[in-house]
Amino acid sequence: MKTRAAVAFGAAKPLEIVDVDLEGPKAGEVLVEIMATGVCHTDAFTLSGDDPEGAFPAILGHEGAGVVVDIGPGVSSVKPGDHVIPLYTPECRQCDFCLHPKTNLCQAIRETQGRGVMPDGSSRFSIDGEPILHYMGCSTFSNYTVLPEIALAKVRDDAPFDKICYIGCGVTTGIGAVAFTMKVEPGSTVAVFGLGGIGLNVIQGAKMVGAAKIIGVDINPSKVPLAKQFGMTDFVNANEVEDVVDHLIQLTGGGVDYSFECIGNVTTMRQALECCHKGWGESCIIGVAGAGQEISTRPFQLVTGRSWRGTAFGGARGRTDVPKIVDWYMEGRINIDDLITHTMPLDKINNAFDLMHQGKSIRSVVLY
Amino acid sequence: MKTRAAVAFGAAKPLEIVDVDLEGPKAGEVLVEIMATGVCHTDAFTLSGDDPEGAFPAILGHEGAGVVVDIGPGVSSVKPGDHVIPLYTPECRQCDFCLHPKTNLCQAIRETQGRGVMPDGSSRFSIDGEPILHYMGCSTFSNYTVLPEIALAKVRDDAPFDKICYIGCGVTTGIGAVAFTMKVEPGSTVAVFGLGGIGLNVIQGAKMVGAAKIIGVDINPSKVPLAKQFGMTDFVNANEVEDVVDHLIQLTGGGVDYSFECIGNVTTMRQALECCHKGWGESCIIGVAGAGQEISTRPFQLVTGRSWRGTAFGGARGRTDVPKIVDWYMEGRINIDDLITHTMPLDKINNAFDLMHQGKSIRSVVLY
Repeated sequence: MKTRAAVAFGAAKPLEIVDVDLEGPKAGEVLVEIMATGVCHTDAFTLSGDDPEGAFPAILGHEGAGVVVDIGPGVSSVKPGDHVIPLYTPECRQCDFCLHPKTNLCQAIRETQGRGVMPDGSSRFSIDGEPILHYMGCSTFSNYTVLPEIALAKVRDDAPFDKICYIGCGVTTGIGAVAFTMKVEPGSTVAVFGLGGIGLNVIQGAKMVGAAKIIGVDINPSKVPLAKQFGMTDFVNANEVEDVVDHLIQLTGGGVDYSFECIGNVTTMRQALECCHKGWGESCIIGVAGAGQEISTRPFQLVTGRSWRGTAFGGARGRTDVPKIVDWYMEGRINIDDLITHTMPLDKINNAFDLMHQGKSIRSVVLY
Repeated sequence: MKTRAAVAFGAAKPLEIVDVDLEGPKAGEVLVEIMATGVCHTDAFTLSGDDPEGAFPAILGHEGAGVVVDIGPGVSSVKPGDHVIPLYTPECRQCDFCLHPKTNLCQAIRETQGRGVMPDGSSRFSIDGEPILHYMGCSTFSNYTVLPEIALAKVRDDAPFDKICYIGCGVTTGIGAVAFTMKVEPGSTVAVFGLGGIGLNVIQGAKMVGAAKIIGVDINPSKVPLAKQFGMTDFVNANEVEDVVDHLIQLTGGGVDYSFECIGNVTTMRQALECCHKGWGESCIIGVAGAGQEISTRPFQLVTGRSWRGTAFGGARGRTDVPKIVDWYMEGRINIDDLITHTMPLDKINNAFDLMHQGKSIRSVVLY
């Protein structure tokens, strides 16, 4: 079949909206009609050419929602008509990782996914017989796409695609870091470094689980009103205090119970660790640092009881946890609507990257 | 009263065995006759003058066992005749730290203990009216010493002082790191960096809790026989492999579940983290690094599921957990006898420091 898609033919070039050939689903695979997709900084990172694992030509996009159109042989967990969210972190429920209680990093199809192909080693996308690569196993910048069954979360039918697509990455990353990775307890004191989309989702996750004090740290005070709406109780402008760590320790009477780094800056990663409370404070790295950059601290910080951790996809097991987060949204426990600042049709998708580069959007969503 | 004690009159000088005046216990304090004390690297560190918090003149020693002789007003948890182990990490059971489920770092008397005095701000030791400082709240290099009630673990009467004194520091630090801080599960794969006294105690702790594979890493193969006796299943000579981290990842099919750094070297601290298994491996720093030294790694190590932690006194709550460890020793579940390589009377205590500097002892014990 043919599908309309935004193709990245090379690094640092605009995406081109073209018709692409799409092979139907093979064994264990599913054909999905994407109804909406977010445009994430990770897509922009790969498109920029800075991603050492980026390869072209490819169909980017990993934050979508859609409907199952067709299934390949052996597929049993979804059927045509089911509403689904693609998972760049799949959940095979059989590998050593899926069977380990402490991780969500299913490795079943990692190697082929990293190479931009389906588990059988080939791509379903092509133009004039020349293969176009998949991306993060999702390629949601295509109206139709093919995914492995293990990379699809089946979600309720009444949830709006143009909102729940964001659960495919940013929402789950932020809320999951709080709820699944760090298991923040009610009454906790939390610091959130960076009030972008991930930071706001961390904040609303912390509020949802009952954190008592949620301190946002940023250098841009224009982000304060929305952060407060999402649950931030205190704001620290890092440019206006002499020492962020000392300030947070004073503000909290000893340090925070949990901190989250949502920027990708190794300096704020260190601050996030060191503002944690002696004895029990735990810091979680969510942001992705530049290639080759390193974090450091004095080991005394750890010996006196702080823990340094990290998370990917919020520690969520996609097929199990993503449907729960969709429920939380439908029950009004989390807010996605106010995070989606722009929508556009596929043929305007390059505008989403422009807005992101200008810092003007939290999340742009492409509607098919 | 008078007591015989080994006094450190200044940095980098031999201890002097002299008679010291000792005031009786004030409110909340206990007079203890020390029957045996280990000589630990921390004592040597302070005596060397490298410890920035070291102060003189002082009576060092923090790894003892003895008998209660007298109690001050208000003391209710011990009585004369009770066998006790002094605790440099006390357990008041009332401060925010004692009441928090994740830490053992009681802060009730931290400030005065750090200054070498009792909680009321004064010292019980003096010579000719000039105060001699306490050390780590214990001062076990004195035949008689005074401690706060909250700094004494009451232990069973049938345990030999000359062995259980080691539970006052090294044994608990190593075994506790496994059992209390990291909660190593049966079947786990464990790497232990450094096969000195702490490393051997980590090894026997890992064996006790049922670890399946216990890999020792050191540069001195002469340590192998004893480490094997204590439960090490595999030895890696760090000088004989190209890359310790790669080697351990190969040896374990992906990395270890838990690693413990028992050296105090920031390079091995990094190796200990990075040899952990993606997704769930957790590394614990036990060794104390030199002043100002820093650990570093790529944040990717944490984002892909490794955790970096640390421990002090093995995460043990002294009054609660130390008596349990004495039981484990008496039940034959752990071996202390083979770790005590030298014994000597108090007037030969300087020999213990000489042996330590020459790397010739695991643990010297002074018998009163």
